[in-house]
Amino acid sequence: MSEYDISDVTAGLSRRDWDDTHGGTIRFALVGVGWWTQEHVLPALSQLDVCRGTVLVSGSPEKRARVADKWDCIERAVSYSEFHDGVAADQYDAVYVCTPNATHREHVEAAAAHGKAVMCEKPMEATPERAAAMVDACAAADVPFVVGYRMQTDPVVRSLRSAIADGFVGEPVHVQGHMSQRIGDIFPDGNWRLNPELAGPGASVTDLGVYPLNTTRFLLDVEPVSVRATASSDGELFDAVPDERAAFEVTFDDGTVAHCAASQNAAFTAGLEIVGTEGAVRLAPGFFDGETQQLTLVRDQERRTLSYDPVDQMTEEFAYVAHHLLAEAEMDPTGAHGLVDVATIDAVYEAAETDERVDVSW
Amino acid sequence: MSEYDISDVTAGLSRRDWDDTHGGTIRFALVGVGWWTQEHVLPALSQLDVCRGTVLVSGSPEKRARVADKWDCIERAVSYSEFHDGVAADQYDAVYVCTPNATHREHVEAAAAHGKAVMCEKPMEATPERAAAMVDACAAADVPFVVGYRMQTDPVVRSLRSAIADGFVGEPVHVQGHMSQRIGDIFPDGNWRLNPELAGPGASVTDLGVYPLNTTRFLLDVEPVSVRATASSDGELFDAVPDERAAFEVTFDDGTVAHCAASQNAAFTAGLEIVGTEGAVRLAPGFFDGETQQLTLVRDQERRTLSYDPVDQMTEEFAYVAHHLLAEAEMDPTGAHGLVDVATIDAVYEAAETDERVDVSW
Repeated sequence: MSEYDISDVTAGLSRRDWDDTHGGTIRFALVGVGWWTQEHVLPALSQLDVCRGTVLVSGSPEKRARVADKWDCIERAVSYSEFHDGVAADQYDAVYVCTPNATHREHVEAAAAHGKAVMCEKPMEATPERAAAMVDACAAADVPFVVGYRMQTDPVVRSLRSAIADGFVGEPVHVQGHMSQRIGDIFPDGNWRLNPELAGPGASVTDLGVYPLNTTRFLLDVEPVSVRATASSDGELFDAVPDERAAFEVTFDDGTVAHCAASQNAAFTAGLEIVGTEGAVRLAPGFFDGETQQLTLVRDQERRTLSYDPVDQMTEEFAYVAHHLLAEAEMDPTGAHGLVDVATIDAVYEAAETDERVDVSW
Repeated sequence: MSEYDISDVTAGLSRRDWDDTHGGTIRFALVGVGWWTQEHVLPALSQLDVCRGTVLVSGSPEKRARVADKWDCIERAVSYSEFHDGVAADQYDAVYVCTPNATHREHVEAAAAHGKAVMCEKPMEATPERAAAMVDACAAADVPFVVGYRMQTDPVVRSLRSAIADGFVGEPVHVQGHMSQRIGDIFPDGNWRLNPELAGPGASVTDLGVYPLNTTRFLLDVEPVSVRATASSDGELFDAVPDERAAFEVTFDDGTVAHCAASQNAAFTAGLEIVGTEGAVRLAPGFFDGETQQLTLVRDQERRTLSYDPVDQMTEEFAYVAHHLLAEAEMDPTGAHGLVDVATIDAVYEAAETDERVDVSW
């Protein structure tokens, strides 16, 4: 059992643990100019010298004009087909893909064909097959490919991971995590996340449940073995998807069991707690960017809760990618890592439908 | 949808919501003089005028002498067989049973035979059949019978229940709750909770998992329909029980799904979170008496975390019972209510063994 106390953890929080000293600027094409790109990505990029958003890619001429007009950094705004054809390819070094899940593949393949590094939003795609094709395309073109799990580049989460690896919680025992929001309030006119043709097999596990799932994998360095799930939809908005609300259990390869819950029609809240034989950690609200965060640490009967103003997670994520591209260093989370979540999500929907335990394979 | 905001909830916390004006004193026989009775019950009673611990019942002459000597209130200390025979029955009005789970029945039946009100620790007994026999015995003798779910008499929990009934969380969606402790640290020389002949079918669900289960039932006024569970034991201390650690899912009759986890070999921590369509509440560490508590309330995108010094839960529980006995008023939680947990726990162990969903019936 390693000796570890709470002060060791609190002292190490909130420092970047990667080399951020390489000079230069990575120019990004932003593919998909919806709510997330406008409200989170462009503001995040504006905080950084090491990256710049230079090209917008959108299917809407109105949106291209309006957003390009608002952000001085944008040099060019093109359609999806222009992007696929390589228009403006000399005006960006890397591509950020933030379109509906089921359309990621063609944009990632185009970026790979243009020889550009790719950063793709989570979950990678709507099916394991399409996600695997993206990984293959980037490997064949020998371009870097990372999946946009912004928790994984948050310094606090990285510090926690390191403390857990050093023994802070002892042997992990159980995990409980959840994430929910009211999508009808965010998008009163409807949203692609509720359309299986664009989102993949469902709305809540795919878009929100992936946070406790992936963050548990990252924090504990474990991989899923099997899942069980309970999901239901009653509300009108959720006619087309099985999971207005979902609760799923993931058994990991070290025996740890994680309880995950997600809903696109519940109060705006989230949290993740990991309990081990020696200690426990809890992040809340955890997965939502921009809110005051609470981190609770438990060890040797001592409990400490710290409130802190979080970093801007998208800023950290873009900085991490740009710093690594400039240093020509390997990056996580890889496409192979992201594939595991797509396979797990698939298994969760099968488990919800069959009411049986489903093995996860990828 | 009811209008409700966070201030309404915070304003109503921590007030007793029962009539505590009846004068008089209820004298308790304390049956079972282990750690809980010595460290939690006798100190709690010493804070109250409305109850007094007057008789000790223990199988150990040494313990009877030592504990009676320490607490001036104790007028008499008797053996289990003396208690069963009615010795000192004129020196107490009510009986508190805090022996190992699988021995509750004989003491409750003896108390009923003596015409005494009964307060019995949770879980009621080791099997549904034995628990039902206790309920029948008290009904036949027409004596009041309550189960010692101390969360249910905690004013904060009662206030939360009332806020939830008034619509604070909207429609409940999912619940996550857990409780763990390191029983080997608390009882280095072993403990009956690890012995199935005394504890019932297991160690962690029975003793700890019952907290998130029962508190969810109480807060949401729902009843279990089915359960699934994953449990395992590796450690030496846990040879005889299936659940050094357990994770179980409870589906309730309103469709709410609760994730519960419990371990007798994990960090000392606990918590309960209820997420609904409109709001969320979280209690942490929740089920452990005497620690500074945090209550987080979420509603309409507002999140507030209050830290407070909790009441002594055993003091409140004894006060509640004594006030109700003096007023000759109906009390909760009834034996019928406690029976549901015993049946649910039984179903959880069956579910863990079969890896199947098990319906709960009682």
